[in-house]
Amino acid sequence: MTEATLDLKIDRKRLEETLNALTKIGMTGKGSQRTAYTIKEMRAKEVLTHLLRRGGLEVRIDGVGNVFGRTRQGSGPVVMIGSHVDTVPEGGRFDGVVGVASGLEIARTICESGITLRHRIEICAFSAEESSRFGVGTIGSAVVAGELSAKDIEGLKDKHGHRLGEVLARLGRSHDVINSSKRDPSEFHAYLELHVEQGPVLESEGKKIGVVSAISASTRLRVRFLGRADHSGTTPMNLRKDALTAASELILAVERICKNEVKGVVGTVGSMNVSPNAMNVVPAIVELGIDIRSILAESKKAAASLVLQEAQQISKRRNIELEASIIKEDEPVTLNEEIVSLFEGICKSSGAPYRVMISGAGHDAMKMARITRSGMLFIPSKRGLSHNPDEWTDLNDVELGANCLLQAALRLAT
Amino acid sequence: MTEATLDLKIDRKRLEETLNALTKIGMTGKGSQRTAYTIKEMRAKEVLTHLLRRGGLEVRIDGVGNVFGRTRQGSGPVVMIGSHVDTVPEGGRFDGVVGVASGLEIARTICESGITLRHRIEICAFSAEESSRFGVGTIGSAVVAGELSAKDIEGLKDKHGHRLGEVLARLGRSHDVINSSKRDPSEFHAYLELHVEQGPVLESEGKKIGVVSAISASTRLRVRFLGRADHSGTTPMNLRKDALTAASELILAVERICKNEVKGVVGTVGSMNVSPNAMNVVPAIVELGIDIRSILAESKKAAASLVLQEAQQISKRRNIELEASIIKEDEPVTLNEEIVSLFEGICKSSGAPYRVMISGAGHDAMKMARITRSGMLFIPSKRGLSHNPDEWTDLNDVELGANCLLQAALRLAT
Repeated sequence: MTEATLDLKIDRKRLEETLNALTKIGMTGKGSQRTAYTIKEMRAKEVLTHLLRRGGLEVRIDGVGNVFGRTRQGSGPVVMIGSHVDTVPEGGRFDGVVGVASGLEIARTICESGITLRHRIEICAFSAEESSRFGVGTIGSAVVAGELSAKDIEGLKDKHGHRLGEVLARLGRSHDVINSSKRDPSEFHAYLELHVEQGPVLESEGKKIGVVSAISASTRLRVRFLGRADHSGTTPMNLRKDALTAASELILAVERICKNEVKGVVGTVGSMNVSPNAMNVVPAIVELGIDIRSILAESKKAAASLVLQEAQQISKRRNIELEASIIKEDEPVTLNEEIVSLFEGICKSSGAPYRVMISGAGHDAMKMARITRSGMLFIPSKRGLSHNPDEWTDLNDVELGANCLLQAALRLAT
Repeated sequence: MTEATLDLKIDRKRLEETLNALTKIGMTGKGSQRTAYTIKEMRAKEVLTHLLRRGGLEVRIDGVGNVFGRTRQGSGPVVMIGSHVDTVPEGGRFDGVVGVASGLEIARTICESGITLRHRIEICAFSAEESSRFGVGTIGSAVVAGELSAKDIEGLKDKHGHRLGEVLARLGRSHDVINSSKRDPSEFHAYLELHVEQGPVLESEGKKIGVVSAISASTRLRVRFLGRADHSGTTPMNLRKDALTAASELILAVERICKNEVKGVVGTVGSMNVSPNAMNVVPAIVELGIDIRSILAESKKAAASLVLQEAQQISKRRNIELEASIIKEDEPVTLNEEIVSLFEGICKSSGAPYRVMISGAGHDAMKMARITRSGMLFIPSKRGLSHNPDEWTDLNDVELGANCLLQAALRLAT
């Protein structure tokens, strides 16, 4: 690599403009709401498509709505830079969008520099990275990596009962088109992703860059307690089959197990539906969505198993029916060691304060790591907040992260 | 009273037809769903209006949609027979409707008998007896009794954010029209109500009639825990402000307090909303609706106070903000002793197995008892089920209850 290449920097102002163009869609005060496959998220992808084309990239959209833009220069396997533009409900401004906007900026910077590429650079906005709509996340990247087929995803339902298969069919995406989105590992030279940390580690240690060495994975459980709807005034306390008190015991058990009983895991009951949900009716049915994460597959298994045991004990003790199942069980992922070293070298030579760390959140890199060597950089999240309208990352940090990723992309693609 | 009067019976077949005509509106399998002021409930009132007119009664609808039908014969203060046609979501077939249909049948039977009435008999279907839509129940009867004014009810909101004031305005019910629905105590000679027990007592003791001596009242609390939305994967267990684990502690505390710590109360967390309610976000805000009931005002106060104390302790221990308030605090009601005796005499002379009992559920009779001497009869609920599609009462029992009420109405009105 030449001196000129090492000095190459992204255009901070243009990156900011791209970020603004994307984040103003679905803006909610400081935060964003672009739930997967809603009008807002589709609109963000349209704007991205426009920006990718204006940046001179060839654009393609696949069967699950993943948007790709690749450089015309280069050949053979691509260096992909990806992330997502969907958000959780009442989500933050930076989660996902930072990686896509930086990817586009990196591609434009390289194209304009006149540097000769051996490998094309391909930008990607993956669909439905967030699991908040369909209960399953990283759908777009899992389909690309061949981990999910049309059959696996078409039956997924959101809380309004809309099936993902119907949602995609309405966008003209048939079963076969969805399956054609799977890509062969030989098409990839490497995968890179820049993302906000979504946790408090970098800020608390005064680091600017996190080089991710492993991504924890989640096990998701769906638990339903089926009690009996009774009148809240006429049913003695000892004759009730209250599904909500049963569920409350389990929620506290998840906390206890993941806080005290199993090391290296976090566990959350984030979603809950109570039926009939009226003040004067003893709750008949409560459904819980439980998320358990770790970078240690064994710890995750142990915690999930304790939670299921506890659910059974509650069900037995309270004489309330139980339906419990593991709806997803992902394997934790180790990222590519060469790319970790490459990132470390770039941070050292640029003087950026960094640390090697694990990711507690799932990312598209987790899926892409199954089919190509993958690397990921974190930039700090203020107060560790994410999936929250107050999520924040300084533009200086976004710029630094994008420049580190630019250097890595150059080393891999030239 | 004459021998003929004592032998007078309602027309079982016609009562069954009235019941069927009303319950087929909003039918959900075995149960019913006619939430207050929805199309279904309005339709039931239309059908009732038609049936009242066909029965020769003068019909009037007041400012909160209460439907009245009175006999043309008689004068001065009325003997009112009332109940309601609205239901909880996924409610039962008999709750409310039984009293209204029996009232109409009683009025028709008396009118057709040629018996001379001193007092008019007035049938009423009160609006929004169930609190499930607006968080406050017996709205129609409370307005008639002068306990709630337009100002008190117009601001009530349902879970979709619809204000009751707007709902009523859309029905042409302005502020003044609502207030004009208050009636003077001098307009009433007595109030009678037939209702299903909604509890297991009569069935378990093999009784057919419950003569209600007192109605327990509820204290309603609204409690909000305001935690912080965090990413479920990246936020260590000990750095969370999880509103749902806090709420779960309180739900179990309500159960413990009302089951073990305070005698003579029941307590229920029936409604709950979790925000943002996504599997990968630590819950930020949880709102609970708590219902505590007793016929002992002091016990109810003690339980509510313990629940609020517990909420404060949880809030402090978990460093999570708390908003808690008592949104309703009704006084338990003792029903009229003379009418209790009258009912007992009728049961004895007809040979109906009965018992004197309290009502754990609130009823319109509770409000009417504030302005006129009031009495109430229960008929058995199979397995004690109510607020449940499986709620059931045998037609034989409905007939027996209606005949007992007919006798009471005759004694009071002639």
